[in-house]
Amino acid sequence: MVNYYNAYTRTSIKFNQTKGVSMSSEQDKSISSNAVWHHATVTRARREEQNKHKSIILWFTGLSGAGKSTLAHAVEEQLHQFGCRTYVLDGDNVRHGLCGDLGFSEEDRKENIRRIGNVSKLFLEAGVIVLTAFISPFHSDRKQVRNIVQHGDFLEIYCNTSIDICEQRDVKGLYEKARKGLIKDFTGISSPYEAPDNAELSVHTGERPLEECVDQVINLLKERGILNTQS
Amino acid sequence: MVNYYNAYTRTSIKFNQTKGVSMSSEQDKSISSNAVWHHATVTRARREEQNKHKSIILWFTGLSGAGKSTLAHAVEEQLHQFGCRTYVLDGDNVRHGLCGDLGFSEEDRKENIRRIGNVSKLFLEAGVIVLTAFISPFHSDRKQVRNIVQHGDFLEIYCNTSIDICEQRDVKGLYEKARKGLIKDFTGISSPYEAPDNAELSVHTGERPLEECVDQVINLLKERGILNTQS
Repeated sequence: MVNYYNAYTRTSIKFNQTKGVSMSSEQDKSISSNAVWHHATVTRARREEQNKHKSIILWFTGLSGAGKSTLAHAVEEQLHQFGCRTYVLDGDNVRHGLCGDLGFSEEDRKENIRRIGNVSKLFLEAGVIVLTAFISPFHSDRKQVRNIVQHGDFLEIYCNTSIDICEQRDVKGLYEKARKGLIKDFTGISSPYEAPDNAELSVHTGERPLEECVDQVINLLKERGILNTQS
Repeated sequence: MVNYYNAYTRTSIKFNQTKGVSMSSEQDKSISSNAVWHHATVTRARREEQNKHKSIILWFTGLSGAGKSTLAHAVEEQLHQFGCRTYVLDGDNVRHGLCGDLGFSEEDRKENIRRIGNVSKLFLEAGVIVLTAFISPFHSDRKQVRNIVQHGDFLEIYCNTSIDICEQRDVKGLYEKARKGLIKDFTGISSPYEAPDNAELSVHTGERPLEECVDQVINLLKERGILNTQS
């Protein structure tokens, strides 16, 4: 078969099979044709082949202090050591940048989750295992994100830690402030948390050791065929 | 040295040196400690080491029809074949999702570029070579994106095709509509395009063959030490 990208083989490259490019319809066109090149996109399938794992959105949800970010980062560490491409979206890298214009009103929190969902979708297309760690208290918002991607591309992981444990820990002192009325609309205190009823996984982050919770998530990924279990 | 992640070595993993984790301050703490784990983040440096190339933002700017998206995808194709991790942000994957709530008013176009800049930054942190293909006509907007990342992380590439060539091609028929007044604030016709005066690269996408333009961008990446020239 003629190498469509011959122009570049003068440099030392590993030539990967160009899945996603229809060779039959392209090979008779000039390499300089914009139309041809514009369609020679690197597809998600080619990225996944390159990465040797599938991409997925792991959506962690739960109360403030439930251990979402901790678990997401621990899972990421494990996946990185497996050789996977990963990224964690959480308050640290989203709240001051992409969503820096948003406050905490109901409308703004909704828009916050909508944007995070759409960014997750971009990472998904980029072949990355993206892990999101946001309270995301409402069914409707989580469902909206689930609906913008293909079935199976969104795995909801419920960090099922009781409000008692979260409040007892109160790592950031937020529950105390919320009880005193210093924070309005605080999830679990003055604003509802709608626990998932169809999460792909429920982990007891408040009661079980972290490594056990990490194993549960990794096992889910293996069951779903995201990770190459041969590696 | 004690392997900090011993708990996981029972599974078959390649252990990468955990750059970014301070072993001296962490090794005396329990593996289950949330505080420890939360700080055991996968850093950009570790991702770059894994990918065997550095991450960067390649910001393509130019008139409608100048060949930004075509060039960005052609460069991505080349980089993918080199074994790099890449992603192109353009109207196709951003306008209907992340920025689906935005119109074409001056304010909305500004917000559009701001969001794209921030998403680019996330991909940058994720170790990816991110290529953006948006007209981005204003100095101030491009400068704002440049300023949210470290010096050297943002390379501006001016797709320097004259308005005459763009209008002559008129692939999407937009110039004709703009001339008839059917599209308001159309860049180059009824709204200004502020050509970059400090772009890292200017490519004559309208006059030179695409492969030559691709080479120019690849050479820039080699000069800047983004690609491992040994590979």
